[in-house]
Amino acid sequence: MPEPPLPAEVEALLRKPNPAVVASIRQDGTPHAVATWYEWRGGRILLSMDKSRARLRFIRANPAVAITVLDGDDWYRSVSLFGRVVELCDDEGLADIDALAQRYLATPYPDRAHPRVTAWVDIDRWSFWNSYRETEGLDGVAPS
Amino acid sequence: MPEPPLPAEVEALLRKPNPAVVASIRQDGTPHAVATWYEWRGGRILLSMDKSRARLRFIRANPAVAITVLDGDDWYRSVSLFGRVVELCDDEGLADIDALAQRYLATPYPDRAHPRVTAWVDIDRWSFWNSYRETEGLDGVAPS
Repeated sequence: MPEPPLPAEVEALLRKPNPAVVASIRQDGTPHAVATWYEWRGGRILLSMDKSRARLRFIRANPAVAITVLDGDDWYRSVSLFGRVVELCDDEGLADIDALAQRYLATPYPDRAHPRVTAWVDIDRWSFWNSYRETEGLDGVAPS
Repeated sequence: MPEPPLPAEVEALLRKPNPAVVASIRQDGTPHAVATWYEWRGGRILLSMDKSRARLRFIRANPAVAITVLDGDDWYRSVSLFGRVVELCDDEGLADIDALAQRYLATPYPDRAHPRVTAWVDIDRWSFWNSYRETEGLDGVAPS
């Protein structure tokens, strides 16, 4: 499975405000997964979580995550990114969630009451799928 | 987090041929995630994998999985299902992948050369998101 840097086609996909799912590991060792906003910024993935989120605990205990980004125009194009949360910081002034809300909804983030945490994810490996085929090899025509 | 049975609204979402992401645990303990077809059948989730898939090894070693299904019409509606692969069987005659291909593409599965494995997933817990809100509590307006 290839390592960064990502090719231009994958970066172009990541730059779009696409649907994504982030997977992490619960403290009991089972996988957690949930839909998420993200931003590809400076070669890392930015995620934002309400400070009360259970998965903030999971990530503090085990920073390994996987993020699958589906092309919003054609979800048969997708990229899965495998890496680690390398930084968690309070989203002071909600600047990061505002950036995400602008990216996805073209509006500031409406909820100003709940504190949020920003997570930065470094990517170790990635896998790109296009037209039912994995770039690394043709072994089927269905997603996964 | 609620347990099955799933409410009618969630079952209705699962019946549509929606994009989904399945997360599993690699043997090194890190999460894997990839886009997938699925079918909700008889209260379980059916997945299909090319027999050569690495994650078939992961699942045999650790059957815990998470599946996030995004509403193809509005991905701010999503359900995450947490459970275990309870059965893995060869897809004899490709009947299961054909059913998935009919569901998603309205055609039989084109690749007849590569053997596939069907996985059945029992659901232990689930979480439903709608209009930026989790059914279990309102704590934000962003996905995750």
